[in-house]
Amino acid sequence: MPAAPDTPGRRPRVVVVGCGFGGLEATRALHDAPVDITLVDRTNHHLFQPLLYQVATAGLSAPAIAAPVRHLFRKQSNVTTLLGEVSSIDAQQRLVHLTDEESLPYDHLIVAAGATHSYFGHDEWATAAPGLKTLDDAFEIRRRVLLAFETAEKKADPAQRAEWLTFVVIGGGLTGVEMAGTLAEIARHTLPGEFRRIDPASARVLLVEGSPRVLQAMPEDLSARAAQQLARLGVEVRTDARVTAIDARGLQVQPAEGDPYHIPARCIVWAAGVAASPLGRQLATATGAQVDRAGRIAVEPDLTLPGHPEISVIGDLAAARSFVPGKEPAPVPGVSPAAKQMGRTAAANLRQRLAGKPTQPFRYRDYGNLATIGRNAGVVDLTTPLGRLKFSGYPAWLFWLFAHIWFLIGFRNRIVVLFDWATAYWSHERYARVVTDIEPAPIDG
Amino acid sequence: MPAAPDTPGRRPRVVVVGCGFGGLEATRALHDAPVDITLVDRTNHHLFQPLLYQVATAGLSAPAIAAPVRHLFRKQSNVTTLLGEVSSIDAQQRLVHLTDEESLPYDHLIVAAGATHSYFGHDEWATAAPGLKTLDDAFEIRRRVLLAFETAEKKADPAQRAEWLTFVVIGGGLTGVEMAGTLAEIARHTLPGEFRRIDPASARVLLVEGSPRVLQAMPEDLSARAAQQLARLGVEVRTDARVTAIDARGLQVQPAEGDPYHIPARCIVWAAGVAASPLGRQLATATGAQVDRAGRIAVEPDLTLPGHPEISVIGDLAAARSFVPGKEPAPVPGVSPAAKQMGRTAAANLRQRLAGKPTQPFRYRDYGNLATIGRNAGVVDLTTPLGRLKFSGYPAWLFWLFAHIWFLIGFRNRIVVLFDWATAYWSHERYARVVTDIEPAPIDG
Repeated sequence: MPAAPDTPGRRPRVVVVGCGFGGLEATRALHDAPVDITLVDRTNHHLFQPLLYQVATAGLSAPAIAAPVRHLFRKQSNVTTLLGEVSSIDAQQRLVHLTDEESLPYDHLIVAAGATHSYFGHDEWATAAPGLKTLDDAFEIRRRVLLAFETAEKKADPAQRAEWLTFVVIGGGLTGVEMAGTLAEIARHTLPGEFRRIDPASARVLLVEGSPRVLQAMPEDLSARAAQQLARLGVEVRTDARVTAIDARGLQVQPAEGDPYHIPARCIVWAAGVAASPLGRQLATATGAQVDRAGRIAVEPDLTLPGHPEISVIGDLAAARSFVPGKEPAPVPGVSPAAKQMGRTAAANLRQRLAGKPTQPFRYRDYGNLATIGRNAGVVDLTTPLGRLKFSGYPAWLFWLFAHIWFLIGFRNRIVVLFDWATAYWSHERYARVVTDIEPAPIDG
Repeated sequence: MPAAPDTPGRRPRVVVVGCGFGGLEATRALHDAPVDITLVDRTNHHLFQPLLYQVATAGLSAPAIAAPVRHLFRKQSNVTTLLGEVSSIDAQQRLVHLTDEESLPYDHLIVAAGATHSYFGHDEWATAAPGLKTLDDAFEIRRRVLLAFETAEKKADPAQRAEWLTFVVIGGGLTGVEMAGTLAEIARHTLPGEFRRIDPASARVLLVEGSPRVLQAMPEDLSARAAQQLARLGVEVRTDARVTAIDARGLQVQPAEGDPYHIPARCIVWAAGVAASPLGRQLATATGAQVDRAGRIAVEPDLTLPGHPEISVIGDLAAARSFVPGKEPAPVPGVSPAAKQMGRTAAANLRQRLAGKPTQPFRYRDYGNLATIGRNAGVVDLTTPLGRLKFSGYPAWLFWLFAHIWFLIGFRNRIVVLFDWATAYWSHERYARVVTDIEPAPIDG
C-alpha cells in the first residue's frame, strides 16, 4: 500500500539523502516551503570537497573544511537532521530504510548520495593506492605522505630511500593535478632543512594519466599550461600512460607507445576514477530507472525518475542533461556547481508540484573551470556574459584562492582557511602535519 | 662490551626518548652543547596535553595543539629527529632498541617516555571508558560525545534517550574537572536549538571521584569553589564515590556511606588513574633501579639512575624528589612544569658531566595550580615571591586562558587557539565537531 498522498492537515514529508553540495542546496532552497524535511547523512558534516586534497597534504585541519550539518540548519525550523546510513529505498511504500533499522516515510524524496572512487574493476588496488573522497581518506593519505619521508630518513640503503621518496598520483584530473603540485611543494619547500639524512627535495613526484593530456575538462592550451607549471614545480607528468597493476611496492605502466615499465614507489594516490554511490543501482532496480556505466541514474529533464515524479536524483548520482532552448540536451559534468544547481532545480520543481504546476527542465550554467598548481600558479577558464576568459599563472592562482574562500560554507571557516593560507604562504610551513597512528607501520622490506 | 666512552674526535651521542614536555625541554637546553642528539618519539608531534580535553570536546582541532617535532628542531643542527617506538633499552651495551629493529647507540641517555592511563588492574574497563592521553584518545572521546547526542535524537524510548544523554567523567582531578565542565557547556550552551526531538540541555553530566574532594592538588577552599562552580554549570559532583564496575551500559558506584548503585550511561570518560610508561619497568630491570606502585623509576637526586650516571629519567616516568636547602626532600608532582624543569636539570647535569664537574640535585619550583571550569569560571592557586595568591571565578578563568596561550609551543598555534577561543566565546559554537567514523556504530539496545 503506497503511503497516503499529501493530505490537508499534515505537511508533506520530504526526505533528503546526503548533505553534499546537492543535498545541502536543495534543503536550503526549501527553507520557507510548507514541508517537513528530514536530512539524513552518514557523516555529521558537510564536506567542502574541493579543498579535501589540502587536508590530505597537511595544509588544512579537517574542521576547517567540515561544517556540522546540524549547526548549518539550526535556524531552519522545517529541517530535522539525522545521522544515519541509507541501506535501501522502497519506492512502492515510500520509505527510506536506514542500516540501524529505522525507516523514514516520505511524500517527496531527493536523493543526493554522491559518488565514491572507482578502481575500474580493480578493487584490490585500493589498499596500495587510496582514493580521496572522505576525511578518513584524507587522513590516510596524509599519514602515508608524512610517514614516507619519516621512513626514508631511517633507511640507509639508497634504493630503499628512493622508493620511499617516490610519490605517484594516478589520474590527471583536477584532484590529481592539485595533489601532485602540492606534494612537489612539500618536498621542495616545506620539508628541506628538517631532515638530517635525506634531502626531501630529492623526492620524485609523478603524475600518471591515461589520456593524452591533464585537465581534460579544460581547453587544450590550458592543459598544456598546467603541464608546464607542474613540470616547473618538479612534477614528472606522464600522459598516455595506462596503469595496469598496483601493489605496495609500486605500479606497472603501459605507455601508448613502447614497452611497459615498473615504477617502484611506496606512496601512491588514486585520483583516477569516480563511480556513483551503490544506492543508485538499488534505487534504479526499485523504480525501473536506467543506470549508466558509472552507476549514475538516468533522470527525466526535471531531474525526477521516470514514473516517480516524487523522487528526484541530483548531483554525482544523476546522469542528467542540461536543456537550453534551441540546443541539443548536453550531459552535465560531475562538478560541485552542477550539484548545487541541481539542488536548486529539484527544490523549485518540488514547490511547483506542491502548487500543482508543471515542473521545469534542468539547465546547467557552466561558469568555467579552475585549478591551482602548487603555489602562485594555476589555470582558469571562465564563461562570462561577455564571452570566454582564459588566464593562467599567478592571477589564476589568486582567483582560485578567493573563489574557494568565497564558496566555503560558514563565515568562520573562511577566516580560518584564509589565515592558514596566509601563514603558510609566508612561512612555507604546513600546519596540519599530524600523524596519530603509526600502526600499522609502513610495510618494510 | 660497553660502548666506547666519550673519545676525542667524536662528539658524545645523546639519545632522548620521548618528546613530551620533559624530552622537548632537555633537547632544547642542549642546543649549544657539543653533542649529537637523537630525539626519538612514536608520534611525529609534541602534544600540548593541558589542552587535549578541548580536542576531545570539539573545541580545538588537533593540529592547533600538536607541533611537528621535526619542524620545532629544524634549526637546532645537533638534533636528529626519528619517528620510532622504543622496545627496550640495553644499559650494558648502551643501545636503545626500536620496534623496527633499528638500534641507537648512546653515550648519554635521557628517558622521558611519560605516562599512560591506568585502570587500577581493570583494563577491561578501557573499552567502555576511554582515557585521554593521546590525540587518538581525544578523537575517540569526541566521537562518543557527539554520537551520543546524535543517537539520543533517534531514540523514541525516553529511558534509552536518558541513557544516551548521561555523560559520566570518572576522576575529579584537573582533566576530569575540565572535561565535565566543558561537557556541561556543550549540553547547555552549544547544542540547544540544533535538535528537534531531544533537548540537549536535559543531558546529565556526572563527575565521580573516589576521594572526599575534587582537585586534590589544590587547597581545600579552592576545591570547594571548584565544586560550586561545577554545580552551577549543572554538573552533578559525586565525591567519596568509588567506581566498582564499568560496562557499555553504565557503571556501578560504591559510596563511602550507603548502598552501591548503578548509573545507566552510554558515554563514560576515564580521567582517574595514571601509570608510568611500561618502558619504566624494563629499564628498572635492566639497571637494577626501583619502581614504585605507579611504575615510576626511583632516581638519584640529580635525576640519573643508581650506578648509571649516563642515564637520566625525567617527567612522569620519574619518581623524583625536590631538594631545597634546609628542607626535607619532597616528592615531585606529575605535572608539565615539573617535567620541563626536570628536562632543564637533566640537560644541565649532562653538561656538568661532559665538563667533568659534579652534578646538581633537582629542585622543583612550584608556581601553583590552575583549573578552568567551563566558561568564565576557574580556580587559581599561585606561589609567588610575595607569598600565596588564590582567586577563583572570572579572573581565574582569564588567567588560565592567557597562561595556556602563553605556554603553547609555537607562535602560530597560539594565534589559532586564541582565535578559536574568541569566536567560540562569542558564538558558543564549538569548531571541531567532526565525526569521521560512525562505524563501529554505537551499540544499540
